[in-house]
Amino acid sequence: MGEFDLIAHYFTRPVRPGGAAVLGVGDDCALLAPSPGMQLAISSDMLVEGRHFFADVDPEALGHKALAVNLSDLAACGARPLAFTLALSLPRVHEPWLAGFARGMWQLADAHGCELVGGDTTQGPLNICITVFGEVPSGEALLRSGARPGDDLYVSGTLGDARLALEALLGHTPLPADVLARARQRLERPTPRVALGLQLRGIASSAMDLSDGLVGDVSHILTASRVGVAINVDLATNLIASSAHPSIGSSQFDTELSRRCVLSGGDDYELAFTAPTAQRSAVAAAAAASGTAVTRIGTVLAEPGLRLVDGQGRPVENRYASFDHFR
Amino acid sequence: MGEFDLIAHYFTRPVRPGGAAVLGVGDDCALLAPSPGMQLAISSDMLVEGRHFFADVDPEALGHKALAVNLSDLAACGARPLAFTLALSLPRVHEPWLAGFARGMWQLADAHGCELVGGDTTQGPLNICITVFGEVPSGEALLRSGARPGDDLYVSGTLGDARLALEALLGHTPLPADVLARARQRLERPTPRVALGLQLRGIASSAMDLSDGLVGDVSHILTASRVGVAINVDLATNLIASSAHPSIGSSQFDTELSRRCVLSGGDDYELAFTAPTAQRSAVAAAAAASGTAVTRIGTVLAEPGLRLVDGQGRPVENRYASFDHFR
Repeated sequence: MGEFDLIAHYFTRPVRPGGAAVLGVGDDCALLAPSPGMQLAISSDMLVEGRHFFADVDPEALGHKALAVNLSDLAACGARPLAFTLALSLPRVHEPWLAGFARGMWQLADAHGCELVGGDTTQGPLNICITVFGEVPSGEALLRSGARPGDDLYVSGTLGDARLALEALLGHTPLPADVLARARQRLERPTPRVALGLQLRGIASSAMDLSDGLVGDVSHILTASRVGVAINVDLATNLIASSAHPSIGSSQFDTELSRRCVLSGGDDYELAFTAPTAQRSAVAAAAAASGTAVTRIGTVLAEPGLRLVDGQGRPVENRYASFDHFR
Repeated sequence: MGEFDLIAHYFTRPVRPGGAAVLGVGDDCALLAPSPGMQLAISSDMLVEGRHFFADVDPEALGHKALAVNLSDLAACGARPLAFTLALSLPRVHEPWLAGFARGMWQLADAHGCELVGGDTTQGPLNICITVFGEVPSGEALLRSGARPGDDLYVSGTLGDARLALEALLGHTPLPADVLARARQRLERPTPRVALGLQLRGIASSAMDLSDGLVGDVSHILTASRVGVAINVDLATNLIASSAHPSIGSSQFDTELSRRCVLSGGDDYELAFTAPTAQRSAVAAAAAASGTAVTRIGTVLAEPGLRLVDGQGRPVENRYASFDHFR
């Protein structure tokens, strides 16, 4: 199977009539027709074998995740997904792998009405680069820069289970098989919070998605908004789903491990966002409308810096650095 | 230097006031505001070390080329460049390399008013994935599907020198140093024909850029337009600039090598386009206005298939396959 057959077989579908894409795969460029009054939100993520995923990962899960991490960026901006491009470097054409990868990718793309409009295929070390396009009414995108002192800090869903699965898969932390299986789902099949992001437009004052760990990621909101924050570590640490599993005894799963996974974990693809206290009922309604749990875990402060406190308000030492590809 | 410092230092600039980009590098998404009545043209190309470039290539040339091949796709659609994202996988942070790469990239980006609005940086085998955005008035994009029987087939600039340089660098073909130096410029610093593409809107019936070799690439126009073509091989072969170099004797540089470089060469990043015969003076005016040479090398036919003929109209056997990453 050659390059063009591969593209035609696995990665080409006609564009949807009435959609934003007016020309898809097969010409020099794709053409998108944004709706009047809309801005285009664009994000690009590159996934590298051995860095972002194991060489033997289920290709269907990988196809899902490669798109999911991009949709998560649209969610963080409150943008509705429209389309994406896929650039793929493959060591060789292995059809069962490609079929699985394509299946996982299309399933998530279809669930969000997001069309594959173009890309590139080449030979080389396995590398997946997706660029995603969404639309948001002009001026309504959720940015990192809007947090104000007094705002509440929220996160969606659960945190830390992806990192816990990674620790177990790397042999650093023993986990019962059923706990690992569930945590691994969080690592390999993250759920982009697109519906929540759309609901939060006009409510949240700032938002971002959690890909490199709560503490490091929230720091980006603080920098962009020139504010500080106090995070209740106990409330945050409760959000690791694995700790509530009946197979887990407290001896196997100590507080420090939970904290590390939740606070510096990474790969959660949940949203962190701030909103004025006057919006608490609106946030609850947005969470309900999108079927997504949200938890209030902190308060935005005028004084710069990220402070961790426990449930009794006592300071907790911040030893929870974010992931950095070059440190 | 960590990931975020690297992005901040080499790949971040404020967005240009009044430009299409309203939010650039540093949030979850970039935001583009397309002008009313415009469609967005999108293309993505991935360059892999050892496949698209040598490991020791001048990083400044590589920064140029990575963007140039994407701008070339916009040129082929007649789109005006607006912005691009850069996803970069690097084995390590080597600052002189990054500085050179960024310099080559910015120089070309600035020449085309094309803003870097986002992307990703990760550790892994060297891989560069750029996605580029341009705008074109709705319905005016140049496509591969518009060629009609009787149209002329044109190409811009010169062809085959990039491939000749590659053959010499791989040790397959001896070349005088001064000839190689010039041909190598064509391989490593291709010129995207953006101005010509813009001038050809409303004149050309179809267009594409030449990246994998003339014969294979023109075949894509034929398939999309459901037509055939006769290409004058002698006219095309004349377009290799290296053969006119005074250091080249006919003994060193035979017709077959010229033909192979021109017809199945690749990496030319010139435009191939068709236009009705009634547009010949308009094509000449477009070429003059954009300062780009164009040469008429063939005629579109109703009968499907690509026929090669010599200057006397005699058939030439087609042994000039296109490049395929997986064959």
